[in-house]
Amino acid sequence: MSDQLKSDNDDIQKILNKGKYNESKELFNSLPAYEIALIIESSPPKRRAFIWQLIEERNEGEILKNLSDDVRETILSYMDPDEVAQVTKDLETDEIADILQDLPEQIMKEVLEKMSYQNKDILEKVLKYPEDSAGGLMNTDVIVVRPYHSVELVTRYLRIKNDIPLSTDNLFVVSRNNKFRGVLPISNLITNPPGEIIKNIMVEKKPLNAKLNSNEVIKIFEKEDLISAPVIDDENNLIGRITFDDVIDEIKSEADESLKQFSGLSGDTFEKTSSAIKSRGFWLGINLFTAIIASSVINIFKDTIEEVIFLAVLMPIIASMGGVAATQTLTITVRGLALGQIMSSNYFYLLSREITVGLVNGFFWALVLGFISYFWFNEITIALIILLSMIINLFMAVISGMGIPLMLKFFKLDPAIAGSVIVTTITDVVGFLSFLGLATVFYS
Amino acid sequence: MSDQLKSDNDDIQKILNKGKYNESKELFNSLPAYEIALIIESSPPKRRAFIWQLIEERNEGEILKNLSDDVRETILSYMDPDEVAQVTKDLETDEIADILQDLPEQIMKEVLEKMSYQNKDILEKVLKYPEDSAGGLMNTDVIVVRPYHSVELVTRYLRIKNDIPLSTDNLFVVSRNNKFRGVLPISNLITNPPGEIIKNIMVEKKPLNAKLNSNEVIKIFEKEDLISAPVIDDENNLIGRITFDDVIDEIKSEADESLKQFSGLSGDTFEKTSSAIKSRGFWLGINLFTAIIASSVINIFKDTIEEVIFLAVLMPIIASMGGVAATQTLTITVRGLALGQIMSSNYFYLLSREITVGLVNGFFWALVLGFISYFWFNEITIALIILLSMIINLFMAVISGMGIPLMLKFFKLDPAIAGSVIVTTITDVVGFLSFLGLATVFYS
Repeated sequence: MSDQLKSDNDDIQKILNKGKYNESKELFNSLPAYEIALIIESSPPKRRAFIWQLIEERNEGEILKNLSDDVRETILSYMDPDEVAQVTKDLETDEIADILQDLPEQIMKEVLEKMSYQNKDILEKVLKYPEDSAGGLMNTDVIVVRPYHSVELVTRYLRIKNDIPLSTDNLFVVSRNNKFRGVLPISNLITNPPGEIIKNIMVEKKPLNAKLNSNEVIKIFEKEDLISAPVIDDENNLIGRITFDDVIDEIKSEADESLKQFSGLSGDTFEKTSSAIKSRGFWLGINLFTAIIASSVINIFKDTIEEVIFLAVLMPIIASMGGVAATQTLTITVRGLALGQIMSSNYFYLLSREITVGLVNGFFWALVLGFISYFWFNEITIALIILLSMIINLFMAVISGMGIPLMLKFFKLDPAIAGSVIVTTITDVVGFLSFLGLATVFYS
Repeated sequence: MSDQLKSDNDDIQKILNKGKYNESKELFNSLPAYEIALIIESSPPKRRAFIWQLIEERNEGEILKNLSDDVRETILSYMDPDEVAQVTKDLETDEIADILQDLPEQIMKEVLEKMSYQNKDILEKVLKYPEDSAGGLMNTDVIVVRPYHSVELVTRYLRIKNDIPLSTDNLFVVSRNNKFRGVLPISNLITNPPGEIIKNIMVEKKPLNAKLNSNEVIKIFEKEDLISAPVIDDENNLIGRITFDDVIDEIKSEADESLKQFSGLSGDTFEKTSSAIKSRGFWLGINLFTAIIASSVINIFKDTIEEVIFLAVLMPIIASMGGVAATQTLTITVRGLALGQIMSSNYFYLLSREITVGLVNGFFWALVLGFISYFWFNEITIALIILLSMIINLFMAVISGMGIPLMLKFFKLDPAIAGSVIVTTITDVVGFLSFLGLATVFYS
């Protein structure tokens, strides 16, 4: 965040804190859209409605585009279908589609009805594809040329058109019946003589099928450093293009999505108190449930603890060390699976390395803790119990850290979401079970 | 990950598992650089050296470029300075600089000595700036034009040059003595008549100072959807440009970096066993230390636990609920600070919302747990103790989740790294202290 921007934001918030809304009106409409978006995102829910009143309609579309999904939803709830259709009319089609998809089904239809015939037609094509597909990410502002056109003809056409869409690094070459043939880099247009035929200077390029999942789209863009890519339907008809900025937006909104699913946190920092209570409460409830499972294990060994009271002091340490080790292995595994680095051919190599790492670290830190406990409680048996249970728990930590993501993947669940809750529950249970179980054997 | 790619990788790993290195040689050199990079990243350290032998020298530069920093370091350790200079010579300057910066200082100097005079000269300019600055990210392949040139002259020049660097959306306009004046979008070059003077069709654009931090560079690119941006020195001399793919790489390598610092995990999934033991062991050690602090608190209340044994069963639940709540608030705060959404003017609003969320959830889940405990242990006092201690701990969770990041920021420490360790230690200590402390009062 540039310091300039942050202090603008802070200054305006201070003015608004004093209730001086009108003073800031002029300021608002002189700032670029992304700065106003930041100011809205930094404001409590009630203030957002006031701010939205102060903004001129001609700026509202660009601001909506710059808001994160969660905040946008609140803002859209202040507007009627007519207004939404009006303020979004000059945005790119994928941006309008993105905004419409934040609306309830019924209202989306009403907004579509209010749109110009042309926009409506194009949008219905884009909305046919799921939001997280190439079709959902694409916009339709492509410049197409024919294989048998000359450089001169194309150049003349562009000069008359005089409006090349942003991020146009390639023109798209299509046959007379709109079948995709290849791309013509703008640079080829400049560096070739006027008489050259497009067919000879166009470049082959694999188009993206509109049904392709957005994760695949992101990977292809990253791997090939693309600025834009053509999108086709199943019959090889060119129907649009995806540009790098849409891909970056998609990366960000996926990160927000996983934040939400993983920990019940919203992408909207200043979300309403009531919704924050609900979503976070849900995860606290899950945690309460798993914590009670772990406590039930402790409950089995009540009598042993009553006899050897310092077991109660030491048992959380064993569980917590297992949790950290399991989370480390889990993170590596989930990341390696996502990057396509972990496969059947090297899974067992990695597993054996992780087991080695777990056992060596388990042994080492058990020695340290055993030593400390020996002096703390003047007891030698406890050192042995710690050694054994720590090794058992760090071994289980590795097994579950590598096994649970595979299991979740098999059941088509996201390993990043449920993984961490499951593995730490396992290490809590195994930690308490091995430590208190061994203690029961040794001290009885 | 496309399934095709993954199965190529898996197939090759299986061939290599059988020790058939020569069979895969031909295959290796027919695959694109990013696929070979993925295969190397999916291989155990020893196998990497074998694979590297099989790759033709002409492909090595592109592959090095596609490897993550951590894996690249291992591969570079197989090569002598002469080879490094040779295989990297056709890469872009910022890519070469990136690779050189992974080498030890002394070897980097040797590689520089082996380079062609021209490369060496440019590289020394780039290497003057820190890796995480605009200067460190830039490359020097810019096309410059003068304000008084005509469209025709520039077009003719480009046609003769016949080699426009990738991601060139803008040419840069500089004065005779190389002062930056503005940019000329390629599209303006196409849509304007040959006789037009550059000065009239160039666009004003704020250049990036070479000393600008890479975080700021990332934010500017994201906000303005830039494909490329000019870089200047303190005297407004144009010295290079940054392209969007460098920015994406930087985002990824920062994510790897924070993974490493945060949890001792390497960006290299298949890192050597010994280094995995060391880095993860370090974080297990930190965790052991904080767990012992929490256990010391339990130790104070040994006698109370001995008398009322089910306290030992319930105490981990209180601590764990605090840990989850604190991590939720911490995540929101760190994210909001990073995005520039949280400032002095709205900090206390957010704090009061978080306190409300913490207290409401604390109260609700304490009721649930109190109810369960009442039936579990046939005891009414315990329900009251749970209620009070849960509210105390979730209140502290919120205070530390919002306060610790500010404190760390004040001391110029990264709030994401140390934050989570500190806040969970606080909630463990406060959880045990309040729960066992209250129990001591109520049961004595």
